[in-house]
Amino acid sequence: MNYNLTFIPARTEKPREYGLTMVMDKGLSLNEAQNLIESSGDYVDFVKLGFGTSLITKNLKEKIKLYQDAGLRPYLGGTLFEIFVIRGLFDGFVKFVEELGLDLVEVSDGSMELDNSVKCDYISELAKRFTVISEVGSKRADVHIPDEEWINMMKNELEAGSWKVIAEARESGTVGIYNKDHSANTKLIDDIVRQVKVENVIWEAPIKSQQAWFIKTLGANVNLGNIAPNEVIALETLRLGLRGDTFFQFLPENMSQK
Amino acid sequence: MNYNLTFIPARTEKPREYGLTMVMDKGLSLNEAQNLIESSGDYVDFVKLGFGTSLITKNLKEKIKLYQDAGLRPYLGGTLFEIFVIRGLFDGFVKFVEELGLDLVEVSDGSMELDNSVKCDYISELAKRFTVISEVGSKRADVHIPDEEWINMMKNELEAGSWKVIAEARESGTVGIYNKDHSANTKLIDDIVRQVKVENVIWEAPIKSQQAWFIKTLGANVNLGNIAPNEVIALETLRLGLRGDTFFQFLPENMSQK
Amino acid sequence: MNYNLTFIPARTEKPREYGLTMVMDKGLSLNEAQNLIESSGDYVDFVKLGFGTSLITKNLKEKIKLYQDAGLRPYLGGTLFEIFVIRGLFDGFVKFVEELGLDLVEVSDGSMELDNSVKCDYISELAKRFTVISEVGSKRADVHIPDEEWINMMKNELEAGSWKVIAEARESGTVGIYNKDHSANTKLIDDIVRQVKVENVIWEAPIKSQQAWFIKTLGANVNLGNIAPNEVIALETLRLGLRGDTFFQFLPENMSQK
Repeated sequence: MNYNLTFIPARTEKPREYGLTMVMDKGLSLNEAQNLIESSGDYVDFVKLGFGTSLITKNLKEKIKLYQDAGLRPYLGGTLFEIFVIRGLFDGFVKFVEELGLDLVEVSDGSMELDNSVKCDYISELAKRFTVISEVGSKRADVHIPDEEWINMMKNELEAGSWKVIAEARESGTVGIYNKDHSANTKLIDDIVRQVKVENVIWEAPIKSQQAWFIKTLGANVNLGNIAPNEVIALETLRLGLRGDTFFQFLPENMSQK
Repeated sequence: MNYNLTFIPARTEKPREYGLTMVMDKGLSLNEAQNLIESSGDYVDFVKLGFGTSLITKNLKEKIKLYQDAGLRPYLGGTLFEIFVIRGLFDGFVKFVEELGLDLVEVSDGSMELDNSVKCDYISELAKRFTVISEVGSKRADVHIPDEEWINMMKNELEAGSWKVIAEARESGTVGIYNKDHSANTKLIDDIVRQVKVENVIWEAPIKSQQAWFIKTLGANVNLGNIAPNEVIALETLRLGLRGDTFFQFLPENMSQK
Repeated sequence: MNYNLTFIPARTEKPREYGLTMVMDKGLSLNEAQNLIESSGDYVDFVKLGFGTSLITKNLKEKIKLYQDAGLRPYLGGTLFEIFVIRGLFDGFVKFVEELGLDLVEVSDGSMELDNSVKCDYISELAKRFTVISEVGSKRADVHIPDEEWINMMKNELEAGSWKVIAEARESGTVGIYNKDHSANTKLIDDIVRQVKVENVIWEAPIKSQQAWFIKTLGANVNLGNIAPNEVIALETLRLGLRGDTFFQFLPENMSQK
């Protein structure tokens, strides 16, 4: 930090097991990726190349190398896994990941239906060669998944070999762990936290109020995902109690005014 | 594409007559314009220098040259035409366009009232020297234009010399062809599509749900406008069925699960 | 301007006393700051390094120098003042500002409670060495400050040494001088304008409709703050009547159609 302040919560350091920030890259140019690295590289653990963008992004290999050389781990968004699998091209997916030199893959079933045991087979298979993260929850607002099912799937997938599980919210932050008005689905989140190790869950939290809610509820080092590239520094200030929303969060009682 | 996938809809190629993407530039710096070109140049047909921004943008000629050299056609947003015309400076407008070396102009009456026959005269006059696109619809939420009038104006303007007509939505996507809640005004759009050749209409669609709706309704190669520079790649994935919203759109029956 | 148009309102020139535009920098990289300077430097008076971002931004001194050399005055957002003060580190704050070579400071009490007389003491103290701007209004939606209190605080703070007072709205534009739906709290704003010299007030106006409202109500040279970096050019067109929202604002009667 540029000034040594008191009462700043300790943040985990890279390579982080917890306190992770995952950024959504929807097609940044090389220069824009470089801007992200320069300003925010220390605070970004993973860069998700969102949905199918990696198929049509120019200079993809150069961008991947840029991120990797700077210590940010890029990976392909889960929808890309589904795009290959629905076409019966799982082997093609593995080949594509390997050719790009990626060491992390995401398995999801947000767009297509996948029996959870089949999904877990994919996870086990991929876990032999890559670090796997898997995403739980549908992208569709009209699909309701009961709370116990969320938790069972998360447990199954971690057991099958997922390093972390992601709780779905889309880029818009209006489905899955959130209600339509962007507020947290507290009942579901409480249930998850009680039954799954919180260090193993990455919460998609594209909107500031959602990020603040998670930091206030689960601490400075909660894992958060789907962060916009130009919001990384702002998120880090939320984690450290350096923004209005979390101003009092890490202060001792005698400084707290409310 | 970085991987040769099956069931990807065929996209038209540059110079496109259909399947057009028009991007809104609200004052990008030269570097930012360069970023757009590098990451998304293949997917952008036109760059609209929005409303009056071209009057106060620095390095305007350099930026125009940058776009033109990269095969993106820049032009002045229709509001600028109106800014000149309301002041009685139509000749000044023509001179300004020519000095900038532009080959495309937009004629609109979204801010001022212009009798449609007068508007068509401007279109005919400009069509002698430039490619003309004209915009139909008011920017004001309180101005209601009956459906038949939309269609008549579009037909008149195409006949007068417009290469394409644009259906107004503003940058906010809440007027004209959309309702206040951003949803599509399906009755109006249906009417237009039945009576105007769809290849000749550019739909302003600044919001993702609007883009997805048009792609699902009118196909991968629907003409779309008012796209934000950092959303071009994401839009192209929607067009190609590479994002959740259009995941099943171009798949054969036997792969479709819903 | 790139073309010499009639009926464009006269804008004040740098260094401005009125007609100020304050931009919010939430962690731009050096390149992104350079982009802002290149495209919009003439239209930006101040750059607020938002809340605690300055504590964790890399290359902070280089960025400050970049802005200063280009004639944009950077300063630390008021929340940073509060972050130091609540920890009893006011002297540390002064030292931090001086080490960064800044000549402008912001005093606020948007996150913590500060008796107005104590706040005025801080203002007086800082005004001996720096230009001071102070912010009035709480960041919390649940804190209601009566109108007379807003006005008294503004008067007190100007008297204590503030060069300008800022009316709070947050980055979201939903508290203080705005209602929850982003519309202007006209009663409060009217009261302020009647009793405080309007040249001395900077209105936070992050949203276009708010910017347009202030320009239509208080003129082209109203002081506006919390502008996003990529919206500066668009704001300047609003000020000059070069966008739909203010199209008729500066035209003579005989050109006005509505």
